[in-house]
Amino acid sequence: MSCSFGSKFKITVFGQSHSAAIGVVIEGVPAGIRLDMAAIETFMRRRAPGQGAHTTARKETDTPQLISGVANGFTCGTPLCAVIENTNAHSGDYDSLKDLPRPGHADFTAFVKGGGFADMRGGGNFSGRMTAPLCFAGAVAKQLLAADGITVGAHIARLAKIGDDPFDPVNIDAAALNAVSEKAFPVLNDVAGNAMLAAIAEAKAAGDSVGGVIECAAVGVPAGLGDPIYDGVENVISHIVFGIPAVKGIEFGSGFAGADLFGSENNDAFTVQNGKIVTAANHHGGSLGGITSGMPILFRAAIKPTPSIAKPQTTVNLQTLQQETITVGGRHDPCIVPRAVPCMEAAMAVALMNLR
Amino acid sequence: MSCSFGSKFKITVFGQSHSAAIGVVIEGVPAGIRLDMAAIETFMRRRAPGQGAHTTARKETDTPQLISGVANGFTCGTPLCAVIENTNAHSGDYDSLKDLPRPGHADFTAFVKGGGFADMRGGGNFSGRMTAPLCFAGAVAKQLLAADGITVGAHIARLAKIGDDPFDPVNIDAAALNAVSEKAFPVLNDVAGNAMLAAIAEAKAAGDSVGGVIECAAVGVPAGLGDPIYDGVENVISHIVFGIPAVKGIEFGSGFAGADLFGSENNDAFTVQNGKIVTAANHHGGSLGGITSGMPILFRAAIKPTPSIAKPQTTVNLQTLQQETITVGGRHDPCIVPRAVPCMEAAMAVALMNLR
Amino acid sequence: MSCSFGSKFKITVFGQSHSAAIGVVIEGVPAGIRLDMAAIETFMRRRAPGQGAHTTARKETDTPQLISGVANGFTCGTPLCAVIENTNAHSGDYDSLKDLPRPGHADFTAFVKGGGFADMRGGGNFSGRMTAPLCFAGAVAKQLLAADGITVGAHIARLAKIGDDPFDPVNIDAAALNAVSEKAFPVLNDVAGNAMLAAIAEAKAAGDSVGGVIECAAVGVPAGLGDPIYDGVENVISHIVFGIPAVKGIEFGSGFAGADLFGSENNDAFTVQNGKIVTAANHHGGSLGGITSGMPILFRAAIKPTPSIAKPQTTVNLQTLQQETITVGGRHDPCIVPRAVPCMEAAMAVALMNLR
Amino acid sequence: MSCSFGSKFKITVFGQSHSAAIGVVIEGVPAGIRLDMAAIETFMRRRAPGQGAHTTARKETDTPQLISGVANGFTCGTPLCAVIENTNAHSGDYDSLKDLPRPGHADFTAFVKGGGFADMRGGGNFSGRMTAPLCFAGAVAKQLLAADGITVGAHIARLAKIGDDPFDPVNIDAAALNAVSEKAFPVLNDVAGNAMLAAIAEAKAAGDSVGGVIECAAVGVPAGLGDPIYDGVENVISHIVFGIPAVKGIEFGSGFAGADLFGSENNDAFTVQNGKIVTAANHHGGSLGGITSGMPILFRAAIKPTPSIAKPQTTVNLQTLQQETITVGGRHDPCIVPRAVPCMEAAMAVALMNLR
Repeated sequence: MSCSFGSKFKITVFGQSHSAAIGVVIEGVPAGIRLDMAAIETFMRRRAPGQGAHTTARKETDTPQLISGVANGFTCGTPLCAVIENTNAHSGDYDSLKDLPRPGHADFTAFVKGGGFADMRGGGNFSGRMTAPLCFAGAVAKQLLAADGITVGAHIARLAKIGDDPFDPVNIDAAALNAVSEKAFPVLNDVAGNAMLAAIAEAKAAGDSVGGVIECAAVGVPAGLGDPIYDGVENVISHIVFGIPAVKGIEFGSGFAGADLFGSENNDAFTVQNGKIVTAANHHGGSLGGITSGMPILFRAAIKPTPSIAKPQTTVNLQTLQQETITVGGRHDPCIVPRAVPCMEAAMAVALMNLR
Repeated sequence: MSCSFGSKFKITVFGQSHSAAIGVVIEGVPAGIRLDMAAIETFMRRRAPGQGAHTTARKETDTPQLISGVANGFTCGTPLCAVIENTNAHSGDYDSLKDLPRPGHADFTAFVKGGGFADMRGGGNFSGRMTAPLCFAGAVAKQLLAADGITVGAHIARLAKIGDDPFDPVNIDAAALNAVSEKAFPVLNDVAGNAMLAAIAEAKAAGDSVGGVIECAAVGVPAGLGDPIYDGVENVISHIVFGIPAVKGIEFGSGFAGADLFGSENNDAFTVQNGKIVTAANHHGGSLGGITSGMPILFRAAIKPTPSIAKPQTTVNLQTLQQETITVGGRHDPCIVPRAVPCMEAAMAVALMNLR
Repeated sequence: MSCSFGSKFKITVFGQSHSAAIGVVIEGVPAGIRLDMAAIETFMRRRAPGQGAHTTARKETDTPQLISGVANGFTCGTPLCAVIENTNAHSGDYDSLKDLPRPGHADFTAFVKGGGFADMRGGGNFSGRMTAPLCFAGAVAKQLLAADGITVGAHIARLAKIGDDPFDPVNIDAAALNAVSEKAFPVLNDVAGNAMLAAIAEAKAAGDSVGGVIECAAVGVPAGLGDPIYDGVENVISHIVFGIPAVKGIEFGSGFAGADLFGSENNDAFTVQNGKIVTAANHHGGSLGGITSGMPILFRAAIKPTPSIAKPQTTVNLQTLQQETITVGGRHDPCIVPRAVPCMEAAMAVALMNLR
Repeated sequence: MSCSFGSKFKITVFGQSHSAAIGVVIEGVPAGIRLDMAAIETFMRRRAPGQGAHTTARKETDTPQLISGVANGFTCGTPLCAVIENTNAHSGDYDSLKDLPRPGHADFTAFVKGGGFADMRGGGNFSGRMTAPLCFAGAVAKQLLAADGITVGAHIARLAKIGDDPFDPVNIDAAALNAVSEKAFPVLNDVAGNAMLAAIAEAKAAGDSVGGVIECAAVGVPAGLGDPIYDGVENVISHIVFGIPAVKGIEFGSGFAGADLFGSENNDAFTVQNGKIVTAANHHGGSLGGITSGMPILFRAAIKPTPSIAKPQTTVNLQTLQQETITVGGRHDPCIVPRAVPCMEAAMAVALMNLR
């Protein structure tokens, strides 16, 4: 089933970009939790559109309505259901593209799969808009994790070939993690950040788009979570992260670079710190054999450039099978990487709730 | 549950490196299939140890015993169970390491998780040996896919910083795919292959190890497989691929390199070939919105260098919490990348059976 | 996870009796279906309260709002989400009972499980009201089944010790099945039906309640659905039927009476009818070895008498552990059997969608 | 997937009556348990054939071989796999029946489902023999439950219309429960038991068979296990119990008889015993709203008479569609109820492991 993830903390998202509403059902939230709804809305606003030159002009307040799972201010042990209305859908923008699949989008594959019945207005079920329910679930997960001393954060590690400073893989600080996550443009190095913003503006001016890489970390995770083989840290996190549109790669710890190292370089020696066994470095990204080591969990995800661009592109008419040139109008981000940052945090948080 | 994967074609692996046997139960194999057991054994031999200078000296015939699911030479619709005996376990080799977790291995995390009861002889349930049951399942899956015109193959794309030629992302040929997969050292460019073999020998002589990258492809896949959001091509493939020990990264199509491109470069224009809609390039790696496009599915996986090395390493005694130096004896591969090639194919094949 | 059922046609219900709304997400509805919303509402009205002397005075229009999964009048392949507002919740009625678990209800067990945070207003997540989302899903399932010639119906087989005529187990007619299902008081024999209504009125006058048995049938089901052992007809149907509050027993075909027969009596001889292999009788209730035989699927479910009664009852105060006498006020049915009839049909229909 | 059950304690059975072996994989057994293999074998012997006049002449030692999941005498946290060889298969007995489906058996439905490839020798995957792996898993579950003070037992409540005494629904004693379970012919009332044995002998002499009802109990179960709606006590237990061949009905507590009571009779008043809230009676069978109440869990399951009988029966030739008369030869039980008693206990124990 394509719209559910997890078992201990199971999320089921529903909706299309232009349906009446979108939302999420969360099973597995324990009873007796006082949810901080203001913090949830603050988190979701980080993902919401229309908040800077680099994002789409589509504006949605994206205020989640919690219609079940809470009574007298506390969770009551039944599923949470949050509904988010689609208030700013301009379906007309997409009518002219009905038979012309946009390159880089799911229009063609959804057409084949759904026999022509897929609702592709605004990207339908494939839209980045479907990450709003994920962010709701992630915000709830972050609160539950925080109560156990676990903090999740992320930043833009790379954008338009411009690199941010990396997280310190061994000594990331929870406070610093929160600080960067909450920045309007979440980078560690603001000089790099300004260059990235300039690159986005330049791409936009050229009718083009850019992609990037997000680095996400979780600290305070106890050792021993996850299961070997098919339910380990990497299996579970990668499964959900690829549910964020435009993600085309993921690596943990030293990842692809580690494949170029010698074993003697990539292995992390064990040592003792404050009476606890830790590793001196963190090439393993917090997971050995799929089980958490107690070191920060670290992954990097590759985000492709937004497929919606203003430049003319070549496609094929689904009805006539003739080649045509299209120019994708409507509202879209020249770079979705900044808005994908909270999505990565949400994915990591939901994954961790399922690994515990 | 850590040892199961999939739903339509569900595999459940069991066993430890030094238990009496290891094996796999496969649910979802249709009735009426005449399995080619010789082909299954040939495929499994590609993964088996002891077949070259670059592999461990541990020798196992790894002949699978099929104890259920077949009657009168045909599958009968009930689960297949294949058992592979562990004939060459030298448990004594590991006794001296009981309290000394090997850097880069799961010894420490398994100890924490299992409260000291984990069976870490030979790597236990974390051992690369647990990919033998995966390869059995993959060999069965490959036969079922082949009957529908789908071919899966892989090669070593990179090893010790030496690159092989890449697959042609648009026009990979099924026959060529089979040809490279079946080579003793599966590379497209034998000059590069020989350099890789030399690098492995050099690392071995130095008591060290090397890692690499495997590229895996599936051709003949119809458009329309997979589901948006959480059960798409990338979710399902990455989930199982991270079940192969030592994998630390995966990317589809242009992957991390694509994150550096402009949208106008990374988008694949649609065109018509033999009356069918195809893409001119294949930056998308055969998946748009998690659904197959009909183009070859392409992923690359990063394999870390074998953590078992002969060089002295620093660890911490689990009982005394004192730092100690260990030298990992026993038999191990200076590079597991070649033996991981059929594992990637198996993972891709099992994933595809679950996407259909 | 307690609120989900199924895999091919997966339903996830959410809400509490007195939350803002209740609802259901359905995954697995194929694209391209034109849902008959009027028929769905008609079906749901059969379950809705306030429609006769025998039901609760609580009135809800129970009109489902479909907020996703449909575009341009057709299902689009993404999950359906239907939301039903709780417009007539009188939470005050339950305040006085907060510490006094009602005998026969889940108040006590929910209190223990939820550490006192369960939302027991109106029965919370345990309320019969949670069958409204099930009926929505069942109504959708019935339409999908009808398109394949499968009809599901049910009647009150027994109530307050008064028996209705049974369905003809071999030759049930789809039209007759629909006819009885749609009756205001769904029985085959109206004389028996009137006696049942009198018994309900009598129980109500006495401040008491009565239970009964519902017989449910599916006809037109092809042979060969279901899987042996754990995913057969009986496993799947019983699993969902026990999700309807107050069900305490289920039997298929000859059921408990069959346990008293000789094998020579209970075995159903095979014969040929219109060139098709059928059975002469139907003691097996349409399932042999968990797989459909093509004969009508038949089950009977036992419904306990409504636990809410006006008579004084003995309970224990959760805070003081002192025995107290309570009289359950509020609005409740002296017999929920009639309203449970469409719920049985919904459960059967959803189960069949998962067996196909 | 038909051969798996559960999630926290997941069992996957494999094999056919006449395959090389049958067995089970159990996921979710915690590390550090010292399994009592002798007790497991004793439990399995209660189900094994050939132990009395009332059972089949097929003799199997049914000794399980544990091939994974244990190291140094303790479970190690990886799946247990137990294999049981099929040493006494007489496949020839079934050849003559290949085209003649036996009434009451799954021959016909399996033929339709498997397109003629189902392995029906000895009943194949539908055979009562497939309860041997269930009993292995149940024996393991019983040991894990016993460590937490939970005891599961069962007896023959009815056989050939002869009733045994019922369990005391409120004050069942764990020791008494074990005592009856371990009897050669598990009944509470030996006079009734002897009458049952005589009825079995009589049916056998007549070439016929008889069925019956088994009552199963679990005591020492804490209050608060199970989840409302779809994962409650009744859902989970009924799902697995219908995986035992020949079960056609199940009821909890007062069950079908309770449907005839008034609410004032069927409701169980709360009271206090030893400082704990309990119920005065146990019409609810230990479950209210799907959640355990702390009272004994009680269910009764209806077992149909063995379909294999020596009397001539009418069937239809699958190839010619002509009616024929068959006499089922081979070895079979005139009554399988006694051997089904440990199977019920196993099902209850495995279900409880999944409810915790």
